[in-house]
Amino acid sequence: MLRSLAAACAALLATAALADEGMWTFDNVPQAAIQEKYHTSLPKPWLDKLQRSITRFESGCTGSFVSPDGLVLTNHHCAMSCLSQLSSSTANYVDDGFNASTRAEEKKCPTQMLSVLVESENVTAKVNAATTGLADAKANEARKQALSKLEAACTESAKRRPGGPLACESVTLYQGGQYYLYKYRRYDDVRLVFAPEHAIGAFGGDPDNFNFPRWSLDFSLMRVYDKGKPARTPNHLSWRQEGPKAGEVTFVAGHPGNTSRLLTVEQLRFQREVSVPSYLVRNSELRGRLIQWGKTGAEPERIVSPYLQNVENSLKVNRGFQTALLDDSLFARKTVQERELRERVKTDPKLADVVGDAWNDAATAQERYRQIYDRYLYLEAGAGFNSKLFNHARQLVRGAAERSKGNEQRLREYADSNLPKIASGLLATTPIYPDFEQVTLSFSLDKLREALGPDNAVVRKLLSQESPDSLAAKLVTESKLSDPAVRKTLWEGGVAAVEASTDPMIVLAREIDDEARAVRKIYEDEVQAPVASAQERIAKARFAVYGTNTYPDATFTLRLSYGAVAGWVEKGQPVEPFTRLSRLYERATGKDPFRLPQKWLDARDRLDMSTPFNFVTTNDIVGGNSGSPLVDSQGRVVGLAFDGNIHSLAGNFWYDPEMNRTVAVHPAIIITALRDVYGAKGLADELLGTH
Amino acid sequence: MLRSLAAACAALLATAALADEGMWTFDNVPQAAIQEKYHTSLPKPWLDKLQRSITRFESGCTGSFVSPDGLVLTNHHCAMSCLSQLSSSTANYVDDGFNASTRAEEKKCPTQMLSVLVESENVTAKVNAATTGLADAKANEARKQALSKLEAACTESAKRRPGGPLACESVTLYQGGQYYLYKYRRYDDVRLVFAPEHAIGAFGGDPDNFNFPRWSLDFSLMRVYDKGKPARTPNHLSWRQEGPKAGEVTFVAGHPGNTSRLLTVEQLRFQREVSVPSYLVRNSELRGRLIQWGKTGAEPERIVSPYLQNVENSLKVNRGFQTALLDDSLFARKTVQERELRERVKTDPKLADVVGDAWNDAATAQERYRQIYDRYLYLEAGAGFNSKLFNHARQLVRGAAERSKGNEQRLREYADSNLPKIASGLLATTPIYPDFEQVTLSFSLDKLREALGPDNAVVRKLLSQESPDSLAAKLVTESKLSDPAVRKTLWEGGVAAVEASTDPMIVLAREIDDEARAVRKIYEDEVQAPVASAQERIAKARFAVYGTNTYPDATFTLRLSYGAVAGWVEKGQPVEPFTRLSRLYERATGKDPFRLPQKWLDARDRLDMSTPFNFVTTNDIVGGNSGSPLVDSQGRVVGLAFDGNIHSLAGNFWYDPEMNRTVAVHPAIIITALRDVYGAKGLADELLGTH
Repeated sequence: MLRSLAAACAALLATAALADEGMWTFDNVPQAAIQEKYHTSLPKPWLDKLQRSITRFESGCTGSFVSPDGLVLTNHHCAMSCLSQLSSSTANYVDDGFNASTRAEEKKCPTQMLSVLVESENVTAKVNAATTGLADAKANEARKQALSKLEAACTESAKRRPGGPLACESVTLYQGGQYYLYKYRRYDDVRLVFAPEHAIGAFGGDPDNFNFPRWSLDFSLMRVYDKGKPARTPNHLSWRQEGPKAGEVTFVAGHPGNTSRLLTVEQLRFQREVSVPSYLVRNSELRGRLIQWGKTGAEPERIVSPYLQNVENSLKVNRGFQTALLDDSLFARKTVQERELRERVKTDPKLADVVGDAWNDAATAQERYRQIYDRYLYLEAGAGFNSKLFNHARQLVRGAAERSKGNEQRLREYADSNLPKIASGLLATTPIYPDFEQVTLSFSLDKLREALGPDNAVVRKLLSQESPDSLAAKLVTESKLSDPAVRKTLWEGGVAAVEASTDPMIVLAREIDDEARAVRKIYEDEVQAPVASAQERIAKARFAVYGTNTYPDATFTLRLSYGAVAGWVEKGQPVEPFTRLSRLYERATGKDPFRLPQKWLDARDRLDMSTPFNFVTTNDIVGGNSGSPLVDSQGRVVGLAFDGNIHSLAGNFWYDPEMNRTVAVHPAIIITALRDVYGAKGLADELLGTH
Repeated sequence: MLRSLAAACAALLATAALADEGMWTFDNVPQAAIQEKYHTSLPKPWLDKLQRSITRFESGCTGSFVSPDGLVLTNHHCAMSCLSQLSSSTANYVDDGFNASTRAEEKKCPTQMLSVLVESENVTAKVNAATTGLADAKANEARKQALSKLEAACTESAKRRPGGPLACESVTLYQGGQYYLYKYRRYDDVRLVFAPEHAIGAFGGDPDNFNFPRWSLDFSLMRVYDKGKPARTPNHLSWRQEGPKAGEVTFVAGHPGNTSRLLTVEQLRFQREVSVPSYLVRNSELRGRLIQWGKTGAEPERIVSPYLQNVENSLKVNRGFQTALLDDSLFARKTVQERELRERVKTDPKLADVVGDAWNDAATAQERYRQIYDRYLYLEAGAGFNSKLFNHARQLVRGAAERSKGNEQRLREYADSNLPKIASGLLATTPIYPDFEQVTLSFSLDKLREALGPDNAVVRKLLSQESPDSLAAKLVTESKLSDPAVRKTLWEGGVAAVEASTDPMIVLAREIDDEARAVRKIYEDEVQAPVASAQERIAKARFAVYGTNTYPDATFTLRLSYGAVAGWVEKGQPVEPFTRLSRLYERATGKDPFRLPQKWLDARDRLDMSTPFNFVTTNDIVGGNSGSPLVDSQGRVVGLAFDGNIHSLAGNFWYDPEMNRTVAVHPAIIITALRDVYGAKGLADELLGTH
């Protein structure tokens, strides 16, 4: 314990470059540290090519181009939404996998959108200029307006770009220390090429998730199309079939979603005492309801499976958070760091003047958040209305109201730059299952009543004559919003259409909107605004005291992590970094989630049992990095990140070089699977560049 | 916050008599404090009569004699197990209530056993003599043997007692500061007399549980029989129909189950970091599975209802524990108390020599407990095998093995003094529902695998060819243990019969018994033994430093609490102590759990809407006190304890005089219900003593 504590303090307080720590922006790669430890340098062309080879899955993953014809390598679990949206009671691509033997058979994913980061622009000065001298709540509004305005102007100008239009998104780094515009090339014709059966793609299921040793063939292939043809992707990664050696340096490029390493002690305390416990209890019950409902038939089981996988994954993540947050040494470490920074600020009167009492301001805001947390969570953040139909209804109701305002006056998610995404989700033909909707909606209404109490005004409004079950049944069976044409009419009809609608889900969304907006307003003015201001000032303190040789918290934007292939020591026992095919067969039970698909049972005799399967590295990654390639110093694919070990969950709060590991699929097992199990020689050749 | 902190410190560090704190043994009632605050004294005859009027429900509740004919007043929720055991698909006494219009119609509860404490005997010196000079593990064994021996001798001698035989149980008070033999008169013919419908008995259900204001008619009536006739109970309580006034002193006599007020800081930390989080996640999922299964039909709903009510109640209790444990001020307070006691011990070399490093010894044991917690919980404590059939199987397997040993060599729960209880539970004709068994067993096998991991030896043994679902189905459908005659044969057949059995549940219990006993042995020798030794020494320190004017932690033995009718201030708003009938009707929604039974809708016009319904007092109680009478200074019933407010859950760790409240049913609404709603005039008269 003490050794890691000391190591972590040293790393975090100084340059964070001693361990293999950090999710670094591409313009601030710690070259010196990499050179010193791994004797490798990453020249700009190397970085540029890698950047252009990485795709962001807007659904929350990463992928990479692995052929000149737009072929994208990602995880099986990143293809789950596409697989389940394309499936039906007669074609189950989740269970049975998918294998397009020709390009004509590649199937368009209904809602998948991929983005490639092309350029970025530092707009920190412009944003700061808009907020200077304003009180917190006003500054918060002005900041949002400035960001919406910058995005709109950027997108407008990028329309006329020779290489094709770009989509602009503002990005906040270092919690307000820097603001950027990131400009993406978007691909919205994304087709499914190959996915193994769920049983092998997620072998071990929830029991093995976040564990290692591991045997998951968690890969899939997609292809981006441009004007109906496979997109040209000259920037793509080549394949190194034999994979990396133990101890070899590896780089992960991708889009880590979210970390909390720069939070104040009081913000962490909020997670420990309020949000994480609330999450765990609520979603554990949901898990139980989903599992039991899935047992009522084959079709329920099929419908529930991808959703349940997400819930179980998030539960494990949050249990990891809880374990980390309940470890008093984490708080001790963070407290020491915070005290040290505050002391350093005090010694510089000018800096002290800028920073003010930022930590206490953040703490006060956190206290306010505690008071409104349940109201915010259940009414505004949607925990009370867990239903796709309700989500559509809210977007229609809010979308109509917001679009009637000027771009900068809207709620941020309805800014012009974001409308295409909203419209695309709203109008897509994705299945909605009424029985499943009733399960999740009834559950969430029950929790709404539990959290706010039966005498709360909204609860009385909804449930004074109904039970959660009867209300959910009524809403789901009577709403017509499962029809995309109905949604289209309402979306295009705007305020008048939405106000005239008698669809019960629209009525519900309308009826609770005032209360939901009211608590959002409190949240934005009294929590978000002072926190944003405090964090901006703390970021200034950090830059002033520690310099800019640090990395920002993850924000689902492009980052680079460096590390090496290495096991770790678990309770005194060494964990070897590689697993091999033979043990997969030994662990198979014949029953989910340890069931091997028939193709793997049939292929057993012709496979090399020593083929490496999964392996671990010291790369510092987090959810959102799923599907990221691991590349070697020559930029070749040597692995596919799909998970972390159980200790990596504490990575939300700090990086522990001794225990935190990335878990990857080995390139050899991917080729073996394609060629020797699935007869997909063409795809294997495309990956190997030998076709 | 600070004010309660100071108050609590003062109370706990000194005599614990300033606030209305404490669950006091009847031989150590704080007469001076009661006299000073409430100008009331409790003479010995008053206490003796009260003691003889209180019954312990062996299922975990309290009741009291309220007529000379053995009539027992308790909670509706304390009658749930009897109501559901007597119900079937054609007679639903849970939903519809039960009302015996003549004594001939009173129905015997299949497994209910009631006990009345008649005498007690201090055996501290004898127990201490047996352990003196032994190392922890040896002392632990010797202590158990001594207690088994004392119980056996006591029971033997009580057989020849003129007033009828008594059952002897050893009791550990002050965590080993004192040992007692408690001698009970047992009643095993307990009949159901009256219960209202579940909808009004538990009006508000889980949402209202542990909340106030409240409208729950949580009472029921039973009657103890002796040789087939209503037992004579000259010691019984009389009824004060108008109830208590605001501010009036009230006493609660009953059997509080368990508190953790004397635990060390490291023991509390274990609860915060290990046991409570584990409990919440596991049982929240179980709750979800039960709720969803209950929706598959009317019969599942009926079967699941009482079980679900227990799960939801325990979940709320544990959420309350979590909230208390995550409040750093609790730990600050406990740390201060502990430091103070340790400092005081140091100043007395002789005492310091006796106490040694007790706190560190307990901490070391706690650390060991962390390492084996999941194994202990899932294999030995049964969390991996959540099934009545399995419980029977384990009792048969263990019971056979243990009974072949001498009384003092057995696992404590198989000591002679406890065998009648075990046999009675094992041989009782209570329904076992195979579908429900599969739900809970499959769930627990799933959690077993999750906790111990798929590569654990026991998990491999059970699940290398099966899923939790398929194994549970096989075990439940193929086992014959649901037949009491089969259980009887095995129980009576002993080791030979059990070893010859091929019943799959018996086979399972046999197969895991070595592993389960192995981890129990570690637990007993390396956790329980050093903790028992440390706690005994800390108890000695407390007696030496603070004297004996304190109360022990609750142990499901008879206690007295004093307090007064009083509301509290919630977030700046006063909460009035009484609720009235009128608001019950206003809160009714027509749907469970806020549905009023038809009888109450029909009776509305003839009821006095100002009738008091529920009320709160400052009495310090805890689970197990459910069903306890509240009596006034003349010993008359002025209420029926059935719950605490949400703040009372922190009462597991400390008593907060400002916030902690007992919630009770008012005597007036009980009489109103019996007479004016249910037409049970005879029972009303029996309570009022006017028949």
